[in-house]
Amino acid sequence: MVKQERAARTRHALIQAAAAVFAEEGFVTASLSTISRRAGVSNGALHFHFASKNMLADAVGAEAAAAVGRITESARAWQGDSLQAVVDATHELMGSLAHDIVVRGGFGLAGDSARRGEPSLRTQWQHWVEDSLRRAERNGALADGVSWADGARVIVAATAGFEVLGGDDTSWLSRQNVTRFWEVVLPRLAGRQDLHRLMSAGSRPPAANPPPQLPSPGLPPQELPSPAGPEH
Amino acid sequence: MVKQERAARTRHALIQAAAAVFAEEGFVTASLSTISRRAGVSNGALHFHFASKNMLADAVGAEAAAAVGRITESARAWQGDSLQAVVDATHELMGSLAHDIVVRGGFGLAGDSARRGEPSLRTQWQHWVEDSLRRAERNGALADGVSWADGARVIVAATAGFEVLGGDDTSWLSRQNVTRFWEVVLPRLAGRQDLHRLMSAGSRPPAANPPPQLPSPGLPPQELPSPAGPEH
Repeated sequence: MVKQERAARTRHALIQAAAAVFAEEGFVTASLSTISRRAGVSNGALHFHFASKNMLADAVGAEAAAAVGRITESARAWQGDSLQAVVDATHELMGSLAHDIVVRGGFGLAGDSARRGEPSLRTQWQHWVEDSLRRAERNGALADGVSWADGARVIVAATAGFEVLGGDDTSWLSRQNVTRFWEVVLPRLAGRQDLHRLMSAGSRPPAANPPPQLPSPGLPPQELPSPAGPEH
Repeated sequence: MVKQERAARTRHALIQAAAAVFAEEGFVTASLSTISRRAGVSNGALHFHFASKNMLADAVGAEAAAAVGRITESARAWQGDSLQAVVDATHELMGSLAHDIVVRGGFGLAGDSARRGEPSLRTQWQHWVEDSLRRAERNGALADGVSWADGARVIVAATAGFEVLGGDDTSWLSRQNVTRFWEVVLPRLAGRQDLHRLMSAGSRPPAANPPPQLPSPGLPPQELPSPAGPEH
């Protein structure tokens, strides 16, 4: 039992280390010895758990996919078919990209040319956003003249943008940035009857963050002081 | 003279080949011999023009930056400080990402971990979008309650998203996709007095493409049949 626990812990440390090294150096440059050193285990232990760098990348991708799945399922469980579930999930996803190295590494692998053709986290996320917008449309929760496909297009593109821009400047992943995005976009996507109930800052603030603001499309402008990112 | 012309042509062929190989394989994996073979020149000729792979990547980046500069300057010259200049430039930029391998390769290098810290095309584009939105705000062309920073945030994020998603599925870069994006976003960003004049499909259609549609936020929904991309 103790042996199995130790093996699970080693495996976990290797996945964390691999995600960090992939995120920093890219998949091709990452060396197995850098990964095992960072995980604090021997090369032999690495090879006991993972026969190749590709299998290690598969494991990072699978853990990241599970994390994204937990985010979307939990948002759906909490907010049902409301657009609020999508708002909440974008906040959680960007938070994970900022703080969870496995999610960051998993998305990085999706954009790596050496790993093209692997099932992509971006596609998983896109599926869920499209499904959610279809549900919202079916429930009459979208604004007149906006289709689920148009809504999904804007959300999927912007969140992919936050993800890649956030690789250089994490302020793109901040709750504030994502909130301002929704302040602009929600009044155009949501039906009038729902708009007053939707919270751009998300309905489930993490304890460590400031409480959510009520939606107020007329908030005074908040400047992006530097072109390097949305806030400083 | 003839010799100089031939040298210029060789240099051009090497930059095109390098951009293609960087886009396909990533910067780290790309080999100089693959690039010289693709350009149809000898390894010696490559080394005569470029002392290293980094210098070749710098040249791809510089040519791509010049192309992006031509797109934004031409949009500004044609449409001045109107939001239409931004709409037009997004169409031209996405068209270049789809059809100009140097622009595609240049943006790919911007996202490559091995080239982090180099001046980025994404930053150049972000500067221009922010400057354009600031001008629009100064001219009273933005909707009430939307700041230049909020408008720029949505546009910069979505276009970065189109760029990366378009690497796997070029339909994200299509005129149709970019038009549908603007159909959703313009009614929220533009002041009422300007909205009827703004063309989501761009004011300068390339001859090869269908003519632009007039803006009609109430167009019937157009579906995204597959989660792999916005259209098929």
